[in-house]
Amino acid sequence: MSSIRVSLMAAVAVVATSLPMRAEYMVKEVGSFHVGGRTATLSGQPSRDVVFSPGAPPIKVDPNGEFAVEQMYVHYVKLAQPKARVPILLWHGGGLTGVTWETKPDGKPGWQQFFLNAGYDVYVSDAVERGRASWARYPEIFKSEPMFRTKKEAWELFRIGPSYEIAGRRVAFEGQQFPIEAFDQFAKQGVPRWVTNDAATQNAYNALVERICPCIVVVHSQGGNFGFNAAVAAPDKIKALVAIEPSGAPDSAKIDVGKLKDVPHLIVWGDFRDKVAVWQQLQIAPNKYRDALVAAGGKADVFDLPGMGIKGNTHMLMMDRNSDDVARLIHDWIAKQGLMN
Amino acid sequence: MSSIRVSLMAAVAVVATSLPMRAEYMVKEVGSFHVGGRTATLSGQPSRDVVFSPGAPPIKVDPNGEFAVEQMYVHYVKLAQPKARVPILLWHGGGLTGVTWETKPDGKPGWQQFFLNAGYDVYVSDAVERGRASWARYPEIFKSEPMFRTKKEAWELFRIGPSYEIAGRRVAFEGQQFPIEAFDQFAKQGVPRWVTNDAATQNAYNALVERICPCIVVVHSQGGNFGFNAAVAAPDKIKALVAIEPSGAPDSAKIDVGKLKDVPHLIVWGDFRDKVAVWQQLQIAPNKYRDALVAAGGKADVFDLPGMGIKGNTHMLMMDRNSDDVARLIHDWIAKQGLMN
Repeated sequence: MSSIRVSLMAAVAVVATSLPMRAEYMVKEVGSFHVGGRTATLSGQPSRDVVFSPGAPPIKVDPNGEFAVEQMYVHYVKLAQPKARVPILLWHGGGLTGVTWETKPDGKPGWQQFFLNAGYDVYVSDAVERGRASWARYPEIFKSEPMFRTKKEAWELFRIGPSYEIAGRRVAFEGQQFPIEAFDQFAKQGVPRWVTNDAATQNAYNALVERICPCIVVVHSQGGNFGFNAAVAAPDKIKALVAIEPSGAPDSAKIDVGKLKDVPHLIVWGDFRDKVAVWQQLQIAPNKYRDALVAAGGKADVFDLPGMGIKGNTHMLMMDRNSDDVARLIHDWIAKQGLMN
Repeated sequence: MSSIRVSLMAAVAVVATSLPMRAEYMVKEVGSFHVGGRTATLSGQPSRDVVFSPGAPPIKVDPNGEFAVEQMYVHYVKLAQPKARVPILLWHGGGLTGVTWETKPDGKPGWQQFFLNAGYDVYVSDAVERGRASWARYPEIFKSEPMFRTKKEAWELFRIGPSYEIAGRRVAFEGQQFPIEAFDQFAKQGVPRWVTNDAATQNAYNALVERICPCIVVVHSQGGNFGFNAAVAAPDKIKALVAIEPSGAPDSAKIDVGKLKDVPHLIVWGDFRDKVAVWQQLQIAPNKYRDALVAAGGKADVFDLPGMGIKGNTHMLMMDRNSDDVARLIHDWIAKQGLMN
């Protein structure tokens, strides 16, 4: 109930607040780094000859040896004069990478650009095993096989529409906001995932927080769980936590929720959750976590977008046609936490 | 002989030219896109139940369906007022990603930052199968197994030093310039590679050139072959081609070298090539290609860095301690091709 009231107030705020969107901004540095991880050593595998470049002679490759594994990749843009008091970290969801935040499938600038324009130093990461974080030989180092998401799964699980036929009809929800004409472009952003690397991934995220924060963390989907646990591990470091459609959350009976009292949370939900059965289930843990936070005296606002009159958002709401309106709502909420100069 | 003379003149130029390095620069947009690729369809694989986030209910996954494969990833930073007439594209080498250009293992800014400071719009890509370009199930879609580079191979093949023992002594070449104290950090940048995706990778690079160029292309190592072939495919689009330690090149008897007459080439070589046997072999194809270019009336300069008195550079010369001096040499050469406003 109280969350709905908060949401409506924020919806009013979006009309009143006009974020000055600069067309250009002064940058101090663009760069990246890897953080976390360990060295794994393999032995006992046979050698083989491999031609690496056409026309090049074969090179004998011994697959045994030391490998860097379980690190994560972090890209950053630092502004010359940020307006935000702390940087914003953007953490992607499952089967995806930081590209989630860099671009929209229709070619429009992503939320990275939005938050740069709004005056934040922006850090966009690839979790362990994804994208530029790299991945390791399985089953020797990673303990299971990778999963590859089909276009059909992306279409249906991300609530773009109720059904997708191979080489056939793609049915979208009426009034949905995803740029479906660019869905195949979106599918190019997908990467394989493992289901056995959660501990390593959490370690790497915690190492990132130790290195960069105090900060604001924005998480999406599978990133929700990692973000909530990172806040438990370092509640003094995370000044605000924005969870976009979190697909999981820690069991509040197993963590010290009181530690999170001073970490303001915002959970943002899109539309059509009642139309895709699995989302009825996926919301349960984040809702319980949120209730426990509030019961412990913490701040945990909810933007239920359709409840606020903002209709048609999919699970990939940072890519929807109205996504910058949603980003503006989030920016306004962050500003209310006292995090803008 | 003529190449040595060109090199010495350039070495003199580096002393004379002072590139104004701004500490900050005005950016219009940071973003990314995927280009190239196709849809692959799998069928006949059994379904399974998978728990994607801790605490979440299992989701039934059907691995059959449509997948986006063989696309590449491209990150860009567009300046408000570029000084370069065309953007610069930075293409990485084998077993690596665009991170090659974003950072140095000791944390210093990479060549992406150098060229942004120097006034170029910069595009940094991940080739097919690498990093954020993603990869596909094998052997069903990709036709071979991935290769994982050991730390030992990176140390020795990249000419940091003659020998590397597991959990033991790492011997570096005397006078080498790689920040060896950060070698383990460098190893985190490595990603698996396949040896059966060259045609797909070339197609994606050609699609990138069609989309973004006219441009300057800077390639490293395995990227050399892709860059030379991209120039053959679109000689009017590539206004200058800088090959850093190319590990291969097209057979000049099989291409129309005359088409490349108006594509100025610069090939840059580091030190210790006589100390690592495979590099004696790897230089043969690029040298033949260069000779054929010159014989056809083209421009193909060579910066043999040790011959120019610039000693100690490894294969990863964009990460060496003196790497910005080398970048400055390259920038000066580009400026001489009439590509700066």
